[in-house]
Amino acid sequence: MSPPLFIHFLFTDLLPAMDGDTKTMTFLQEVVDILMAYIVESFDRETKVIDFHYPNELLQMNNWELQDEPATLDDILISCRATLKYAIKTAHPRYFNQLSTGLDMVGLAADWLTSTANTNMFTYEVAPVFVLLEYVTLKKMREIIGWPDGRGDGIFSPGGAISNMYAMLLARFKMFPEVKEKGMSSVPRLVAFTSEHSHFSIKKGAAALGIGTESVICIKVDESGKMIPADLERRILEAKQKGFVPFFVSATAGTTVYGAFDPLIAISDVCKKYNVWMHVDGAWGGSLLMSRRHRWKLDGVDRANSVTWNPHKMMSVPLQCSALLVREEGLMQNCNQMHACYLFQQDKHYDLSYDTGDKALQCGRHVDIFKLWLMWRAKVKKSYHANLLSCGYFAIGFCPQHTNVCFWYLPPGIRYMEDKEERKKHLHKVAPVIKARMMEYGTTMVSYQPQGDKVNFFRMVISNPAATFEDIDFLIEEIERLGQDL
Amino acid sequence: MSPPLFIHFLFTDLLPAMDGDTKTMTFLQEVVDILMAYIVESFDRETKVIDFHYPNELLQMNNWELQDEPATLDDILISCRATLKYAIKTAHPRYFNQLSTGLDMVGLAADWLTSTANTNMFTYEVAPVFVLLEYVTLKKMREIIGWPDGRGDGIFSPGGAISNMYAMLLARFKMFPEVKEKGMSSVPRLVAFTSEHSHFSIKKGAAALGIGTESVICIKVDESGKMIPADLERRILEAKQKGFVPFFVSATAGTTVYGAFDPLIAISDVCKKYNVWMHVDGAWGGSLLMSRRHRWKLDGVDRANSVTWNPHKMMSVPLQCSALLVREEGLMQNCNQMHACYLFQQDKHYDLSYDTGDKALQCGRHVDIFKLWLMWRAKVKKSYHANLLSCGYFAIGFCPQHTNVCFWYLPPGIRYMEDKEERKKHLHKVAPVIKARMMEYGTTMVSYQPQGDKVNFFRMVISNPAATFEDIDFLIEEIERLGQDL
Repeated sequence: MSPPLFIHFLFTDLLPAMDGDTKTMTFLQEVVDILMAYIVESFDRETKVIDFHYPNELLQMNNWELQDEPATLDDILISCRATLKYAIKTAHPRYFNQLSTGLDMVGLAADWLTSTANTNMFTYEVAPVFVLLEYVTLKKMREIIGWPDGRGDGIFSPGGAISNMYAMLLARFKMFPEVKEKGMSSVPRLVAFTSEHSHFSIKKGAAALGIGTESVICIKVDESGKMIPADLERRILEAKQKGFVPFFVSATAGTTVYGAFDPLIAISDVCKKYNVWMHVDGAWGGSLLMSRRHRWKLDGVDRANSVTWNPHKMMSVPLQCSALLVREEGLMQNCNQMHACYLFQQDKHYDLSYDTGDKALQCGRHVDIFKLWLMWRAKVKKSYHANLLSCGYFAIGFCPQHTNVCFWYLPPGIRYMEDKEERKKHLHKVAPVIKARMMEYGTTMVSYQPQGDKVNFFRMVISNPAATFEDIDFLIEEIERLGQDL
Repeated sequence: MSPPLFIHFLFTDLLPAMDGDTKTMTFLQEVVDILMAYIVESFDRETKVIDFHYPNELLQMNNWELQDEPATLDDILISCRATLKYAIKTAHPRYFNQLSTGLDMVGLAADWLTSTANTNMFTYEVAPVFVLLEYVTLKKMREIIGWPDGRGDGIFSPGGAISNMYAMLLARFKMFPEVKEKGMSSVPRLVAFTSEHSHFSIKKGAAALGIGTESVICIKVDESGKMIPADLERRILEAKQKGFVPFFVSATAGTTVYGAFDPLIAISDVCKKYNVWMHVDGAWGGSLLMSRRHRWKLDGVDRANSVTWNPHKMMSVPLQCSALLVREEGLMQNCNQMHACYLFQQDKHYDLSYDTGDKALQCGRHVDIFKLWLMWRAKVKKSYHANLLSCGYFAIGFCPQHTNVCFWYLPPGIRYMEDKEERKKHLHKVAPVIKARMMEYGTTMVSYQPQGDKVNFFRMVISNPAATFEDIDFLIEEIERLGQDL
């Protein structure tokens, strides 16, 4: 497969070795050839989505242990092939398992470049271009949100959960700046509000920030999964009566399971009335802001104090790419800065406002911007608009607002079961079995879960640009094929 | 430069487009050719480390703005070239600016593969191989720390600051598990301890977690920058007398500026005596555990409850790659889990202990393991041992314990200045001017900062495997050349 000479070569033959140029280029080209073959294969419907093995089996199937003898470059290439053999083909047109699916070629090229540039976002000094591109792109995103002249602040963080945590941190600091120095013992009991269908990261963030999960009040949703603003107001009043301080409301734009959009205008009215920070968790649905046809679902987002928006989901940017946008300028800096003098020297020769690292929780920060910027350049808003699908022809239970379609498959054996409880119990077991079979056959992948009193159902999401109507039909037929004996 | 036909092609011509294979491969190959040329150039000493421009200039030098018309693939390639033209060549043998320098070819290949696999660490379901490799590698790292049979827990997080924050979160939860639900109002006033030379992320973490920066007590260091255990004990007693609860000590193994190693055994005795969680921030120095010759500097690390270790620093793994290792099994899971039923279904068909996502603060988590695993395979512990340099022949003020060498350059104009205060004032301005000139010439880059009562000095670190003794000589000569008129 690879040039036989690699059998004798080691990493020490590569750059920075003297005269390592040719060997390095040959080695990297070999790797690229492996990756190219994988890419072409991934888009081929004749290929399996996954060659599944149970963890213990997979541990045996290759020598994954770390050895005492260095591997030759040939062994390294073999390891690359083995890793890809057992990987999930996330680019596959029939991979629907997560909110992030598909593989964009411009995004991939950008990510390869990012790895090659191998730098860190903390200062302009070490990442001049990437810092500027982050500046340009965050401004554009704020303009799209609708904040005047795109003013405000923001950061790319390691995922939506961290973006949401940032928002909570900022809200707390805005209301009680002394919390930074004095901690939670200096502030009254704070409470946050989010819908019962919101993402678990709100509670996770509250636990981490020392607020506690019990101080996250879950607001009721209607049958389509949207937060009920009247219930929000009721719970805020209730909390105030108890002497607690409401400081944070997280509305969800595109819930994880149903894809529901909370009514932002009504929620913003409540937030304004009680002077509470309004956050919009648009990790999943934020990308609809790029669509003329669908952006009305986020009407009112410009009233938010902060917005999470993950281009690595619906916009198909390679993982990870999550932005937190903040309306107030300077707040992130004040909230998080620690003035490390070895990094953020104040006597540098350039405009220090480009040293954005001190507003982050992280010190080093991975470059997540370039892939988004390059893809945006290739696609522009217009093309994103055209790509954002809407399809809702086999939903059960409610009218879908996003590309989430939630449904049960009813196998023949339970279709006419009379005992409703018995039927429910049986139905709960159907999706897990079908999913397991799906993975063993490796033909397609889709997610399932229960929600509230609803037993296990499939959640089909479309964010994979490679998927066609035929692939969706395939999924339905495959579910039937794998589940008809249940 | 690129095939002229790309002038007419758009991203829509690439996969998943019908018959997009050939165009995709040609496009990606063009990108790879650009990257290969950049790599070879980066290692060439005739090339500048940076083609520096001030932010406002750089904004003008290329069209970085996001357009309304989609760029052709040819434009995309031009953007890639422009981005690299103005990037810092972090692989350059004369780039010494940060603790993370250099570019490893096996690590780069692994990072390209990671981008291509484009998946997420939250479940075995979507990242079977990477989850196993994380398991194998964390176990190996724990064995190297010295925990029996490599037992314990851990995670790869987005950088050392977040790893340290995890440690603090775990320490708090271990002592007061109710804090997860009830928040900080349910616990007494907690205090953490770390040396005055420790990394700013300890305070940043305390601010975020609601502990407050004032509850981080800075312990005195000796003249070489090591924490003084007697002062730690004194401050713990003082805190207890005030009714505060000491819960966390962060010892540093390799401080950022001096590269000092706190005396872990003596610190662990204090921690044991007062029943305080002992964390070792080995973000910078942890990699010395791979070295037979230098690992004594971390003697006592096996007594720690948690250890931060960043392979993206001294081990040259591409950014980002930071591990938190934890001695107690199960604690991370209990501390952070939220049981999201759409992701961590309990009725899956495989061993659920491999679904590690719920122990993270993040939901989605970038794959940072593969590059470390592949590099480790190529190099093994032995080669790392040989690579970890020690050089200390031009330090000023103290004997270096790591590859940090801190020094002033005394320009002729101040060498014989008699007024000590005047001299200090002048000397403080020397390093920033030399650094600015260095960047404008683009010949080399090294960091500077003040520390305590010491005015601005250079901090030379060697983590770049491409650097030779000649490159270090070059730096010294260049400093002299650029600073002799000051």
